[in-house]
Amino acid sequence: MLIVLSGPSGVGKGTVRKAMFANEERDFVYSISMTTRKPRPGEVDGVDYYFRTRDEFEHEIKTGGMLEYAQYVDNYYGTPLKYVNQTLDSGKDVFLEIEVNGAMQVREKCPNGVFIFLTPPDLGALRQRLEGRGSEASSVIDKRLVQAREEIKMMQNYDYAVVNDKVPLAVERIQNIIESEHLRVQRVMSQYEKMIGVQA
Amino acid sequence: MLIVLSGPSGVGKGTVRKAMFANEERDFVYSISMTTRKPRPGEVDGVDYYFRTRDEFEHEIKTGGMLEYAQYVDNYYGTPLKYVNQTLDSGKDVFLEIEVNGAMQVREKCPNGVFIFLTPPDLGALRQRLEGRGSEASSVIDKRLVQAREEIKMMQNYDYAVVNDKVPLAVERIQNIIESEHLRVQRVMSQYEKMIGVQA
Repeated sequence: MLIVLSGPSGVGKGTVRKAMFANEERDFVYSISMTTRKPRPGEVDGVDYYFRTRDEFEHEIKTGGMLEYAQYVDNYYGTPLKYVNQTLDSGKDVFLEIEVNGAMQVREKCPNGVFIFLTPPDLGALRQRLEGRGSEASSVIDKRLVQAREEIKMMQNYDYAVVNDKVPLAVERIQNIIESEHLRVQRVMSQYEKMIGVQA
Repeated sequence: MLIVLSGPSGVGKGTVRKAMFANEERDFVYSISMTTRKPRPGEVDGVDYYFRTRDEFEHEIKTGGMLEYAQYVDNYYGTPLKYVNQTLDSGKDVFLEIEVNGAMQVREKCPNGVFIFLTPPDLGALRQRLEGRGSEASSVIDKRLVQAREEIKMMQNYDYAVVNDKVPLAVERIQNIIESEHLRVQRVMSQYEKMIGVQA
């Protein structure tokens, strides 16, 4: 199963992902990204990133080797397809933590993945404020509303919305989602069908 | 949100349901069934069942008052629509524990419900036996295979398959599913849209 965590920039995707992988009991594998940016002190190739030259990265793009990629500040970042497929083939879940544009590229290629949108805590708080009214300057609410509309529009391409109010709570929700998704009939049935030879 | 727990007879639906409602922290409401059978000693109308006459029950059927119903051993059993709708309107989840035929009636009327199929533990064990082979008489496996095919065919109309290997584990899985389903974008979005007035 492919699990994709994404969300607006600054929402805390990286922090939540690190907290998820701090849990020893997890049984999914983090997909290491590929980048053309230079390693920072202490960063190791194949651990923090796959560090590649611009030529090498563009070769991967041309030969269909990238599940998703994007350019930020003159550098490429992306997910190599090979390691994702190897892990999925070995029967393990793969966990991607990527930007919203990349997530949409993955959605097209892997519609059966589980797509989780991490939302800022004040999107939830906004609801309460709008429902309660009065307690906040209307200009603040107006500004936040414009932003909220953007976030909600992004959200609609995902399966789940998880509020990042507190990191341990967000982690727990994501773990719940992963466990529940493994109980989905569409995932379980195909295993049984393959084994028993039922054509449902 | 409407939650429907069903499964083959004898799988332990009632036991799992009772264990779920023993948890004080649950925030869903059990839908009390309506029946024409006589109350047993100690059973209370409106607590264990809504006890009704045959005429009253058939009047409910004719006037569209039943979400689902069936006849067993000369008695009607079913779910009155009124209480389900009242509870849903009050913003609470409703939990139904019903037979597979009833569940399919509900699926037609409430496609957005969460449909959970409780499977016997030996459906999972069967897989292991077939994969391992050898350790079991083939006639036993053959008989169980026929039954498994039936169960898997029923399963395909549900969203989730939960193995009832141990009741507390089954309860935990169901509670996970309920929590995760509340984070589904399609459920969350409609709340935001209503409030913010976004047309996504």
